[in-house]
Amino acid sequence: MNAQSNRGTGSVLGKTRVEAFSDGVFAVAITLLVLNLQVPQLAASVVSRELVPRLFELWPKLLLYLLSFVIVGIYWVAHHNTFNYIKRSDRILLWLNLLLLLCIVFIPFPTALIGQYPEQQISVVIYGGTLVITGLVLQLLWWYATSNHRLVDRNIDPQLVQRATRKNLMAPIIYLLAIGVSFLSVQVSLIFFILVPVLYIFPSRIDQYWTLRPIHSIDEARGSADGDAGLPGEEASPASRMSPEEQ
Amino acid sequence: MNAQSNRGTGSVLGKTRVEAFSDGVFAVAITLLVLNLQVPQLAASVVSRELVPRLFELWPKLLLYLLSFVIVGIYWVAHHNTFNYIKRSDRILLWLNLLLLLCIVFIPFPTALIGQYPEQQISVVIYGGTLVITGLVLQLLWWYATSNHRLVDRNIDPQLVQRATRKNLMAPIIYLLAIGVSFLSVQVSLIFFILVPVLYIFPSRIDQYWTLRPIHSIDEARGSADGDAGLPGEEASPASRMSPEEQ
Amino acid sequence: MNAQSNRGTGSVLGKTRVEAFSDGVFAVAITLLVLNLQVPQLAASVVSRELVPRLFELWPKLLLYLLSFVIVGIYWVAHHNTFNYIKRSDRILLWLNLLLLLCIVFIPFPTALIGQYPEQQISVVIYGGTLVITGLVLQLLWWYATSNHRLVDRNIDPQLVQRATRKNLMAPIIYLLAIGVSFLSVQVSLIFFILVPVLYIFPSRIDQYWTLRPIHSIDEARGSADGDAGLPGEEASPASRMSPEEQ
Amino acid sequence: MNAQSNRGTGSVLGKTRVEAFSDGVFAVAITLLVLNLQVPQLAASVVSRELVPRLFELWPKLLLYLLSFVIVGIYWVAHHNTFNYIKRSDRILLWLNLLLLLCIVFIPFPTALIGQYPEQQISVVIYGGTLVITGLVLQLLWWYATSNHRLVDRNIDPQLVQRATRKNLMAPIIYLLAIGVSFLSVQVSLIFFILVPVLYIFPSRIDQYWTLRPIHSIDEARGSADGDAGLPGEEASPASRMSPEEQ
Repeated sequence: MNAQSNRGTGSVLGKTRVEAFSDGVFAVAITLLVLNLQVPQLAASVVSRELVPRLFELWPKLLLYLLSFVIVGIYWVAHHNTFNYIKRSDRILLWLNLLLLLCIVFIPFPTALIGQYPEQQISVVIYGGTLVITGLVLQLLWWYATSNHRLVDRNIDPQLVQRATRKNLMAPIIYLLAIGVSFLSVQVSLIFFILVPVLYIFPSRIDQYWTLRPIHSIDEARGSADGDAGLPGEEASPASRMSPEEQ
Repeated sequence: MNAQSNRGTGSVLGKTRVEAFSDGVFAVAITLLVLNLQVPQLAASVVSRELVPRLFELWPKLLLYLLSFVIVGIYWVAHHNTFNYIKRSDRILLWLNLLLLLCIVFIPFPTALIGQYPEQQISVVIYGGTLVITGLVLQLLWWYATSNHRLVDRNIDPQLVQRATRKNLMAPIIYLLAIGVSFLSVQVSLIFFILVPVLYIFPSRIDQYWTLRPIHSIDEARGSADGDAGLPGEEASPASRMSPEEQ
Repeated sequence: MNAQSNRGTGSVLGKTRVEAFSDGVFAVAITLLVLNLQVPQLAASVVSRELVPRLFELWPKLLLYLLSFVIVGIYWVAHHNTFNYIKRSDRILLWLNLLLLLCIVFIPFPTALIGQYPEQQISVVIYGGTLVITGLVLQLLWWYATSNHRLVDRNIDPQLVQRATRKNLMAPIIYLLAIGVSFLSVQVSLIFFILVPVLYIFPSRIDQYWTLRPIHSIDEARGSADGDAGLPGEEASPASRMSPEEQ
Repeated sequence: MNAQSNRGTGSVLGKTRVEAFSDGVFAVAITLLVLNLQVPQLAASVVSRELVPRLFELWPKLLLYLLSFVIVGIYWVAHHNTFNYIKRSDRILLWLNLLLLLCIVFIPFPTALIGQYPEQQISVVIYGGTLVITGLVLQLLWWYATSNHRLVDRNIDPQLVQRATRKNLMAPIIYLLAIGVSFLSVQVSLIFFILVPVLYIFPSRIDQYWTLRPIHSIDEARGSADGDAGLPGEEASPASRMSPEEQ
């Protein structure tokens, strides 16, 4: 930051604090997921015989822990990328962000529900419904920030905005499908939930594009001045290296 | 920051750490609210029949989760805005801030109480009382910081100080009314609690004032130098864009 | 920060991350204290008769919540002030800091114990013992950092080091007295625990010294350049405004 | 940061946010460990007779709390040091980091398990297995970042990379040995777990090397300009002062 541009304001902390608070909420929510895994309470006389089978019975909860951890992780990456593009803030953004966090914080509850009763259709509906709403709120936030370049850079690539929108909507659509399928078979619907992380984690077309641009040359051009910047060059190229698409 | 003004001190971290710690406390407190929502424990034989009705019985707890989340969110926004105006710190501010956090951290308890026993008047008294005290502590902090420009800028708009004061006191007054009404009807008193978030979230008069000032022109005047500043121009206009009023 | 002094290192984040992690741990530990306050579970038939008396029975837990919150708050302020003076870091400091956090994170357990069994002497011994060890670890960290100016500024006022040492040791000594008194009367010993926050929160001699130095003039001399610095002048005066003494 | 190198990007927050989120997750996970220590619930008539023996029965849980706290602390220090060397980021790093956090967040569960059933071999297998996987993921992240200097500085000392690798692998190997030994004797295997913290906390060869380089002279050469930098000189020397080796 330079003195001239922050004259007596303290405004520089604005976005930082929104992100710091969001990171805190994400961090707590993602960690609370493990509380669903409870050590079985057994009488001393039966421990050696029953502990192993009782631990094996935890596998649906363990699977759901992994799944929800990755899903919250995807949303964190998406949040992180979205806010990289947001340059301004206003009341509505602040409240849309809180609405998104409200959804994120809620996730441990449907996770516990589906981990406890994986064979019940209502579990799939509530778990899927929560994730549909979370995804739509994220897209609402992205739409609000980008429409008419309201809170983003004027020069933002319109293609990037579109691709991020498509990727934001992909997950809710799959979750809606999962809810639909759950009316036929609860087991099959669970496969859809596992599909989403796979789609988001593995690199997409845009990643291959990046490999054509050598990272080193950019970094060196920018030089040593941003030694403390952590990830120099991260957002420097027109097709920035971590777009909201790559959630 | 510039080298000259921070010579060998590390003081720059002072306010940052107070905010970071506060953000952490807010983040944990807001996330703990979801722990009140517990998955019903049912015997395998009755699950398919009783799970759905038992989940429906959770609705008061769900409503209270939403309400308390939004209320803590309002206080976080208020805290965030208040500290944007505070330029100095002292022992008393540090302790007033801890007192405010003590109230925030306490909120999950009355939330659990009123979620469990929504029809009991004592729940309304304790829930409302906690929120009254929290609001008064916030106002005490604001009064302490602004009276005689103790910890704020000398040029702070006196109107802004007054309006923020009025807005800080609005919530405790409504909660006091809710407690009063609870002696007549507990159900009616609950409506008052829902009223507060509605009043705070929806834009007030001052927001319309901002729309007359084009944001883009300010940002462009300030230029690209504060690219890393997150929210350039946020506090730049005399009627700053996120005042403590807009909690 | 300036480009020259951080050439390609990223080192600037070192102390920041230690503090951020510590803040996170403090924030979670202080918030977990509220989990000791559990809503009484009552059968529907007896709620209206028994809820109020059962809530009144929570008063020792509520008192202990308040007390432990303030005690953890005191340690957070102490940690904050201590690290303001620490300019370098090494392995041993990192581990002493983790040892201190280990004590802080443990505090919810003895708090729950003494809240549940306030009349049992073992509760006082464990609660007091935890606080004695926490205080001694803090002093060990301070001694390690300051002896031979190992990790602090060479120009640090030796009087400040001594006074902070005395203040660091005051709490453990009072807690030791409380443990001793608990062998005679558990009730009386509890008064000692309430005494410590009172001694730490209320301003001490050094605060009166500060009032002689006008804050405004310092701030204005330093000018608008550090508008984003949060607490300009905080550590600027020889008798800095938030010394480790004022925990 | 300087204006020129961050023109309109916001990229400076990239690595900071990854670290902040990781710090948050570490902080919550390390604090949740204390939740395994539950105050014994005793009827009023037997409290004075049974409280002390029941508290003594908590010693395996207390020991495991200490052990897991230190182990998570070691991983936090390792994470902190690893990211000090990482200069760039990409999708895969982001996901490897989330995978590491997934392991860290899981640790409270096997800690609770082995604290509850310390004499059961399955506890050792699950506790040890979790730590083996955590250690291997950390090494995978380090290997990914350093191979072909993918995400680290070109000038990084190859010896440092090798030594860090060896140290990263040391813990998983000892934990594997512990699992092996548990087939013969569960008691003996527990000693291996205590061995690891001892090996990591106590200074290794490289620390003695550092004492030959006076810290003060470096700091003074760098001068007062980085007063806000926290730990000036921390990473300035070729053999930097906090390498990933010194976890």
